[in-house]
Amino acid sequence: MAHADRLLLGPGPSNPYPEVIEAFSRPVLGHLDPDFLAVLDEIGDQLRAVFRTKNALTLPISGTGSAGMEACFVNLLEPSDVAIVGVNGVFGERMCDVAHRCGADVVRVESEWGHAIDPQRLLDAQRAAPNARVLAVVHAETSTGVENEIAPLAAIADTDTMLIVDTVTSLGGIPVDVDGWRADAVYSGTQKCIGVPPGLSPITFSDRAVERVRSRSTPAQSWYLDLALIADYVGSARRYHHTAPISMLYALNAGLRVLLGEGLDASWERHRRVGTALQQSLPELGFRPFAQERRLPQLTSVWLPEGADDLKLRTELRDHYDIEVGGGLGAFAGKGWRIGLMGHSARDRSVTTLLGALRELLS
Amino acid sequence: MAHADRLLLGPGPSNPYPEVIEAFSRPVLGHLDPDFLAVLDEIGDQLRAVFRTKNALTLPISGTGSAGMEACFVNLLEPSDVAIVGVNGVFGERMCDVAHRCGADVVRVESEWGHAIDPQRLLDAQRAAPNARVLAVVHAETSTGVENEIAPLAAIADTDTMLIVDTVTSLGGIPVDVDGWRADAVYSGTQKCIGVPPGLSPITFSDRAVERVRSRSTPAQSWYLDLALIADYVGSARRYHHTAPISMLYALNAGLRVLLGEGLDASWERHRRVGTALQQSLPELGFRPFAQERRLPQLTSVWLPEGADDLKLRTELRDHYDIEVGGGLGAFAGKGWRIGLMGHSARDRSVTTLLGALRELLS
Repeated sequence: MAHADRLLLGPGPSNPYPEVIEAFSRPVLGHLDPDFLAVLDEIGDQLRAVFRTKNALTLPISGTGSAGMEACFVNLLEPSDVAIVGVNGVFGERMCDVAHRCGADVVRVESEWGHAIDPQRLLDAQRAAPNARVLAVVHAETSTGVENEIAPLAAIADTDTMLIVDTVTSLGGIPVDVDGWRADAVYSGTQKCIGVPPGLSPITFSDRAVERVRSRSTPAQSWYLDLALIADYVGSARRYHHTAPISMLYALNAGLRVLLGEGLDASWERHRRVGTALQQSLPELGFRPFAQERRLPQLTSVWLPEGADDLKLRTELRDHYDIEVGGGLGAFAGKGWRIGLMGHSARDRSVTTLLGALRELLS
Repeated sequence: MAHADRLLLGPGPSNPYPEVIEAFSRPVLGHLDPDFLAVLDEIGDQLRAVFRTKNALTLPISGTGSAGMEACFVNLLEPSDVAIVGVNGVFGERMCDVAHRCGADVVRVESEWGHAIDPQRLLDAQRAAPNARVLAVVHAETSTGVENEIAPLAAIADTDTMLIVDTVTSLGGIPVDVDGWRADAVYSGTQKCIGVPPGLSPITFSDRAVERVRSRSTPAQSWYLDLALIADYVGSARRYHHTAPISMLYALNAGLRVLLGEGLDASWERHRRVGTALQQSLPELGFRPFAQERRLPQLTSVWLPEGADDLKLRTELRDHYDIEVGGGLGAFAGKGWRIGLMGHSARDRSVTTLLGALRELLS
């Protein structure tokens, strides 16, 4: 059957590493097979290295990045808890929605799309609501291409508020430092800078977050995402919870091996180099940056050139060049693009190819 | 890297069809790419054929079977709703747990493990609680190998109670008839009789169930599993919800093509033939049936022969023969096995191989 083969330069999925696709062909094993459990343990170690944490509870949730987001909130929140959420894009909004559904009282700390959230404002919000159960922020806003600074939020660890960080688009692409940030619950996705197809959400919980999960007065509202139960499968008890998505876990295992083989520093530097090259060249073609500060190298947001037709241009890119870029969201829809250079797609060749195609289309 | 290659005869995962593993190598596409959306649409049609339903809302949930279970409950239940649940094994218990977490008032209709639930008792429970929002039952109890009869429950459709059916272990292996059952919410898994690795949960909702989801007074407590949102991505609006697990969906697409290519009748007959052959032969080796009635051909539950050591025997099967069978659960743990003949594993050769190995080990 004919099947398109695209260069994936949207906001995710990116093109997976060849070793990842190869791993899908490994024979399926049972979820309690010792050979499979060895793979699962190795993934835990790999994720600790990539998240830069010693957290014991570090594992892939059996769902996409949004399932990881939900896992953090449903495990840490109980009804009427206060949740402070930084909002400067779609994924901050999504956090508010998820927290609301947990029955939380949500305090929004907003910043305009395209701008970062001043960490001091988040710290101030926590000081004003010291009983807040969690403070949540997106590290790399996929909807705007802006990085929110996390390091200054480490001070939260000295309070009763727990720090939740979304690293879906940052992990593997720019420095993520879970222990340095003293973060309590951090989640990511596989389909961005890790170079693995979508389907799993790596997460890590600090010891105090685990303690919180274990001492809840009500069970988490999600059985599927209940980390108290999942920990008993991933941990030494090996108690069956749900059937692990075996083949996707092989793929993640292989992708993390590629990433750690290259080295985190080298991967960050590669993402920085190709992203910078793209961002320096796009203005020559009439694109103007959407992100006004702290631009992510792995996700470039740009306004289209004057008079350019979003849909027509993206359709031509897709149908004539087999290149996918992402459209804008919110007020940015129809007027801007989000161009990802992530994982295996984060290569000099991707930049050359995209710029070449755009030059042909816009000339 | 050395990687075990097992004959998977446990309660799932089963060995996937070769065409399924092949499908994993298809190039990853974006979740809004028209070529991918065509695959997603085809999966919807395939699932309608396999579930035997005309339900418009028929799709794969981005999680394993337990996520499908949770999707049914969180979308149909609101706090204080009454849920009637048939319980004769682990998965009926799990339904109660999930319903409790939705804030429901759970009415249990129990039957002893190894026995079926008399459908009349479920109908009587509904008559005694006509305000019940849902009545839920497991079609094929994976923990005991017993089939619960669903067809007589069609009468529920004339009441205000909605019928939820778990077909995780039945779909593709024995007749499932969603429209004939007049069921409202039915979920399954990929890793049993569909012959696809674990990771997705096919579900289907009747029109009145969809109406119920759309008219809730509170949003579903799970954002990730909110079918009102997911329907807008799978349906014609194509509104982004979460990033679809592309490669797993290729695998499901391929598995469903194998199943429908063989034909549902032929697949049921194959599962029936090999399961019956196994069940007829096991007593000669000293195994006694655990399921006392309505035995599933695709999942055989047996007490071990007098004096046999569960762990030793399963370890020898695994390490010397590369065969996995499943241990017992609950009171059955350590004393019984669950032997699956599902999907690609449902072959005459599997029976011959397992019986051969057992004869060698038990002689």
